[in-house]
Amino acid sequence: MKYCNQCGGTVELRIPAGDSRERFVCVTCEVIHYQNPKMVAGCVANYQGKILLCKRAIEPRSGYWTIPAGFMENEESLPQAAARECMEEALASVEIQSLLAVVSLPYAHQVHIMFRAHLAEPIFGVGEESLEVGLYDPDDIPWADLAFPSVEYALRQYLADQAAGVQNVHITDIDRPAWRKSTII
Amino acid sequence: MKYCNQCGGTVELRIPAGDSRERFVCVTCEVIHYQNPKMVAGCVANYQGKILLCKRAIEPRSGYWTIPAGFMENEESLPQAAARECMEEALASVEIQSLLAVVSLPYAHQVHIMFRAHLAEPIFGVGEESLEVGLYDPDDIPWADLAFPSVEYALRQYLADQAAGVQNVHITDIDRPAWRKSTII
Repeated sequence: MKYCNQCGGTVELRIPAGDSRERFVCVTCEVIHYQNPKMVAGCVANYQGKILLCKRAIEPRSGYWTIPAGFMENEESLPQAAARECMEEALASVEIQSLLAVVSLPYAHQVHIMFRAHLAEPIFGVGEESLEVGLYDPDDIPWADLAFPSVEYALRQYLADQAAGVQNVHITDIDRPAWRKSTII
Repeated sequence: MKYCNQCGGTVELRIPAGDSRERFVCVTCEVIHYQNPKMVAGCVANYQGKILLCKRAIEPRSGYWTIPAGFMENEESLPQAAARECMEEALASVEIQSLLAVVSLPYAHQVHIMFRAHLAEPIFGVGEESLEVGLYDPDDIPWADLAFPSVEYALRQYLADQAAGVQNVHITDIDRPAWRKSTII
């Protein structure tokens, strides 16, 4: 950030009065530009025991597999965001069910929130941000080619809960994965 | 938002190619300025059956009561954010325990995530953003003077779970409260 989005003045990094962290502050109008983590909402969508997966067509991690998930928008709820992302990436209309996982990723300035979802009919397609979309038997999940550690976490917790006949909520923190070498978000 | 924080050019609201929503886009450098919901992390902190509450010293809702809670910062996890806010607002060092509530507030462009927490000793104080801080018996919670609907939701779910001897995770959406007349976030 170099300029104030309110007045166009230049910003500098400084600790505002009463604060303990450096913020971008406008040297002209004094507005403080806070920067906060973003939320990603997604779902493990199940159709008759098979799980909906998408191969990503965009960076980061183009060519790797994910559950439908993406940045939450203003003026929607978390379940709405998860269902919208499933429609955008997999052209699939799902019913969002229970909360599955809440994953903090401090290095990425993100929190990923994943739900269980029900796909009533095997109707789906390849959204603009996907290269392929399919329903996968749990034994055929491409574990070595998953896009993000939060996706692996959500899928593993989902399957473990299913095997145990429970539906728990799982919360964890995940450190920077090896492929994420840059400190730039 | 009037100016691009990257190049200082003016921004305009338009739907970028491949998108479906209006975004602030810089007319000079074409950078898209996405705006996403913010997360608030908080906790219901318990010391021998009493709950830590703070009377707010800042707007919005100055003079009303809340559990310790505030905006999550970059490079921290949700439990770290909840513990930090408890230290800042109530000068109390808590152990964050289980996830209690995940509340979407679409009107406010926020998601509030509340935890159960344990206060080992009755050591607390009045942080800079608080007017009063105290430990309250559940019968003495000032229900009519709570600052935010998510605070009431978290407290009611906490007490109901405690009465039932369970620790569930509660997820809900909350509409704009009556006192929030402005559409400005």
